[in-house]
Amino acid sequence: MKPPSETHVVIAGAGLVGALLACQLGKRGYRVTLCERRPDPRAAGFVGGRSINLALSCRGITALRRVGLDDTVLASSIRMPGRMLHDEKGNLTFQAYSSNPEDAIRSISRSDLNLILLDAADKNTNVEIRFESRCVGADLNAPSIELETPTGHETITGDYVFGCDGAFSTVRGAMQVTDRFNYQQSYLDHGYKELLIPPAAECGVDASLHDGFAMDPHALHIWPRGHYMMIALPNDDRTFTCTLFWPFEGPNSFAELAPDGPVRDYFDEHFPDASRLMPTLEYDYANNPIGSLVTVRCSPWQRHARTLLLGDAAHAIVPFYGQGMNAGFEDCRLFDETIEQVEGDLSVAIERFAESRVPAANAIADLALENFVEMRDSVADPLFLLRKRVEHTLHRLDAECYMPLYNLVSFSNMPYDEARIVGGRVVRLAQCIAGSLQQDGETGLDDEALQARVVAILDHMEGST
Amino acid sequence: MKPPSETHVVIAGAGLVGALLACQLGKRGYRVTLCERRPDPRAAGFVGGRSINLALSCRGITALRRVGLDDTVLASSIRMPGRMLHDEKGNLTFQAYSSNPEDAIRSISRSDLNLILLDAADKNTNVEIRFESRCVGADLNAPSIELETPTGHETITGDYVFGCDGAFSTVRGAMQVTDRFNYQQSYLDHGYKELLIPPAAECGVDASLHDGFAMDPHALHIWPRGHYMMIALPNDDRTFTCTLFWPFEGPNSFAELAPDGPVRDYFDEHFPDASRLMPTLEYDYANNPIGSLVTVRCSPWQRHARTLLLGDAAHAIVPFYGQGMNAGFEDCRLFDETIEQVEGDLSVAIERFAESRVPAANAIADLALENFVEMRDSVADPLFLLRKRVEHTLHRLDAECYMPLYNLVSFSNMPYDEARIVGGRVVRLAQCIAGSLQQDGETGLDDEALQARVVAILDHMEGST
Repeated sequence: MKPPSETHVVIAGAGLVGALLACQLGKRGYRVTLCERRPDPRAAGFVGGRSINLALSCRGITALRRVGLDDTVLASSIRMPGRMLHDEKGNLTFQAYSSNPEDAIRSISRSDLNLILLDAADKNTNVEIRFESRCVGADLNAPSIELETPTGHETITGDYVFGCDGAFSTVRGAMQVTDRFNYQQSYLDHGYKELLIPPAAECGVDASLHDGFAMDPHALHIWPRGHYMMIALPNDDRTFTCTLFWPFEGPNSFAELAPDGPVRDYFDEHFPDASRLMPTLEYDYANNPIGSLVTVRCSPWQRHARTLLLGDAAHAIVPFYGQGMNAGFEDCRLFDETIEQVEGDLSVAIERFAESRVPAANAIADLALENFVEMRDSVADPLFLLRKRVEHTLHRLDAECYMPLYNLVSFSNMPYDEARIVGGRVVRLAQCIAGSLQQDGETGLDDEALQARVVAILDHMEGST
Repeated sequence: MKPPSETHVVIAGAGLVGALLACQLGKRGYRVTLCERRPDPRAAGFVGGRSINLALSCRGITALRRVGLDDTVLASSIRMPGRMLHDEKGNLTFQAYSSNPEDAIRSISRSDLNLILLDAADKNTNVEIRFESRCVGADLNAPSIELETPTGHETITGDYVFGCDGAFSTVRGAMQVTDRFNYQQSYLDHGYKELLIPPAAECGVDASLHDGFAMDPHALHIWPRGHYMMIALPNDDRTFTCTLFWPFEGPNSFAELAPDGPVRDYFDEHFPDASRLMPTLEYDYANNPIGSLVTVRCSPWQRHARTLLLGDAAHAIVPFYGQGMNAGFEDCRLFDETIEQVEGDLSVAIERFAESRVPAANAIADLALENFVEMRDSVADPLFLLRKRVEHTLHRLDAECYMPLYNLVSFSNMPYDEARIVGGRVVRLAQCIAGSLQQDGETGLDDEALQARVVAILDHMEGST
């Protein structure tokens, strides 16, 4: 086994996952070449990835802590301890994500985060970052990747290759044509379009109300509308990025509302409070692209114990649990821990990580798909709200025993597949209790009374088993 | 709409489905260019596709009848009205596929069938077949395909392009990188290897017993062994092609029994009666390749109403229901009927067929996977055998009302997805009756007694609803 300083590691993609992996492997002393198709954002300005901001939660923070970047990143993030629901009349309801007021997800700018990670990677003298080097092919036997650069094509061979090149990964493409590679790409019938809410002053809102924001920045805003929805996350510059999730076809769809259609009328009717805060709505709607939403699953994630996929390249998911980046960062953290466990044998670490991580990736892919229904529809249902209150009550009663699914996914590092099972039980218990409260007409209890009833019901259940 | 004679249709792949499609479109007067990577088998000898022989059943025959080739093909086929099960001691049990003695699947040589179809396509003066022309790319906007020929690369543009280029379709590859193309390739943990049983005379069997065959040719032979199995289908030349379906790894697997391992000992132990009929076993095992088994699902099957996938390119399935070729031929038949329904508007036919056929393709993909368990395991289970007898009894009682799933799939043209639902009900009813017979200890009834009990149970069920 060669020492790290003589081991050449090639990473395709310097997005969030590739840059974090470079930090980790750089720290371990490997000779890292990090290849990125875009120009250096520190010189050229950031050329967007997919979405402008992201929700960072426990798994992402845990991974950042491992490379000492958690404080820096958290400093530029905005706490969102709950959801703010907007109904058709503009009425607001706040739903805390947790009964523990410490728990919050955090809105962070994709570009800021990427810059922090690139800077950190660059500080390692053994990490070389090559911009304007697009990975256009991979040879899994070498292993090597082929780069398209401003001066031509180039093949770069390493002892190991890591495919961190996203949902449409070229490295994965090379794996896909090898025998016995299982692969699935599955698109939603919904697409998305990003829209803007500017700072308070620019849309006629009293700037003193929300510290210069047009709405409360400490929430993930949702306009749930059954088959579709809009959400908004706050940005550092006091704007909000709204994302409209809409079917491509059919009633209430991108096909129905043409770019030059009656956009303002439509928003006035369906999102009246948001529409008032969107002075550039017509322009944004007409000019911003419609994105599609893909889930990618595959296995095995590695070939010949020399090439490994991480992040979206291995498991692209839909954004509805806010876990895409967090799952990718967790990949990096777990892979780094595996390297430690096998005392630096990268081949063994690649095989072990690739095999052990697939069930978790499949679980969060499923959960993210299911959460779309919750966000766009269930959140507006009184029985759902009651169930959430019961979940929080259970959690307050015994945080160990009754950690709800959302908390396990967003505020713990329990493997996603385990969280799904453990948290699913709490959801079903809360559902059952909420159902019996509803049957008894006890839907309007205050927190104290609710807790007393939940305790009574639990005691009764225990007695009957 | 241009008349057929001025409409240029390009077909990628002159395997079974591509050649049949060329026959159909040629008959309709289209100008067809049929492109095939292999040399002309009529001059060069047949260079194998995947398996040597295939099971032809109702759907395939119906499609062949449409182009007037059913009689020619059936003449060179061998009737298999049931399964012959071989246990570990070499004991035989025959299971008819149907209560109707007319029903049979038919063993047919892939190469003979392909030659018949190529000859028939070639008889149309408006069909041009280009051999040694491998499709290496496709442009869905033209639409065109890129061919690699002995003299170089060539692009061939048509009014329409049909991708009949199999499970690893290049045309589908071009679709896969377009937005919102859903795609899945999924491999079994089992692979397969073909082995040979020569004519009776060459393996010491009395040639008068089975008309020169070493075993009864009028059956699909199965050696069910729980997690794995071997099957054998008869060939025209009085040989059988055996196919061993085995896990790649683990106990009883290709990994465990190396090409130079104790192959004869293993077969003597697990397939004693077959082993005696396989004089070239060691050589065949060492030299024949191990194939993998993939299921491919995708949608949509068409792009711009100009390019369409058919057969394995659209829906590769595992071979355990003997429906891969039959499903591909049914694609051709249904597409041809659709052309008729829309009065020759190929664009509309492409869109309509592509959308309507997906549920059937997904159903047979699932059924084929499920049938692997039935063939390798359940067929040896007494309760399963009783259930099959009850299915046949029900079928005899009322063929309209109680058509079992196997019959609907193999001996009818009912869409696979509908067959799955309708036939599934009969399977569950038979399962329920067999269970109650078992409970009452009535497992050894003769046919007459069984029928009387089934009628009584049905009457009782009717009375209680």
